[in-house]
Amino acid sequence: MITRIKTLALAVFTAGLFLMLGCSSKTEQENMKTNKEELVTIFPKGQKGPKANFTGNAYNIGLVEVDSVFTTAVGNVYFEPGARSNWHSHPAGQILIITDGVGYHQIEGQPIETIRKGDVVKCPPNVRHWHGASPEVGLQQLYIVPNTEKGIVDWQETVNDEQYFKQK
Amino acid sequence: MITRIKTLALAVFTAGLFLMLGCSSKTEQENMKTNKEELVTIFPKGQKGPKANFTGNAYNIGLVEVDSVFTTAVGNVYFEPGARSNWHSHPAGQILIITDGVGYHQIEGQPIETIRKGDVVKCPPNVRHWHGASPEVGLQQLYIVPNTEKGIVDWQETVNDEQYFKQK
Repeated sequence: MITRIKTLALAVFTAGLFLMLGCSSKTEQENMKTNKEELVTIFPKGQKGPKANFTGNAYNIGLVEVDSVFTTAVGNVYFEPGARSNWHSHPAGQILIITDGVGYHQIEGQPIETIRKGDVVKCPPNVRHWHGASPEVGLQQLYIVPNTEKGIVDWQETVNDEQYFKQK
Repeated sequence: MITRIKTLALAVFTAGLFLMLGCSSKTEQENMKTNKEELVTIFPKGQKGPKANFTGNAYNIGLVEVDSVFTTAVGNVYFEPGARSNWHSHPAGQILIITDGVGYHQIEGQPIETIRKGDVVKCPPNVRHWHGASPEVGLQQLYIVPNTEKGIVDWQETVNDEQYFKQK
């Protein structure tokens, strides 16, 4: 009888240990997701943005190509932590829809604003701005460029570290 | 010695059983997510769409209000399983970006197409269409209406069950 109780106790103890080990590794993985690049991904990662226009690793995929009917360009950019666009402007402006992560957006002459999942940003036509991930967490963002008959983007100079780290 | 082996075997067996039960309940919950309304949500749910324009429960939140600069309306609709829009058309067309779930889109005269996370749909100007969730799984979709100076939407009649269930 005592042997059976011991056996059962050992079984339950070992089961608990396995359960803790087995399930906690899953929870740790989930926590890691918000600190590394495993944000929720909706679209394929696409092509790495050129060094001429981006600092760090940013990946762009076009979702709606420009045509004369919709006159709208839509795409997704995934910025790895620390990555950002150069300064640039859009002849007809740009709308950003943040679908996951944490990043920065700055309109020239204004403070850097922190942008997060669910945020919507509008940058008016011909206004210089840049956007990208925060240093610690990546950013998934949709971009919408309307009225593309006016032009799409004018790329300008790099956002240097002094500018990027000058938060608040 | 044999008792110890038996004890160990029982412990490992019980541990395995607990591990299966403990972790499978988590996996089942994750599977449930895709069958119920717990899709990935990026935006607040918003307001329930009126019965005049929707069958079932659909919730709309505006993200970009119409103005004369961007001339673009953007918003998110969450369709509960079985919910769908009425037939309607847009004077300047519409772009849909599916961010989670499974749904249907139909352009009049064409077969129903199944739409899923990551899909992009373009419906041309003044073409009758409807969209909504599948019967079993909800749908999260962003909509983009370009060139709003031409108008936004012309609502028309209900998509009845015969039309909705006529898949493929």
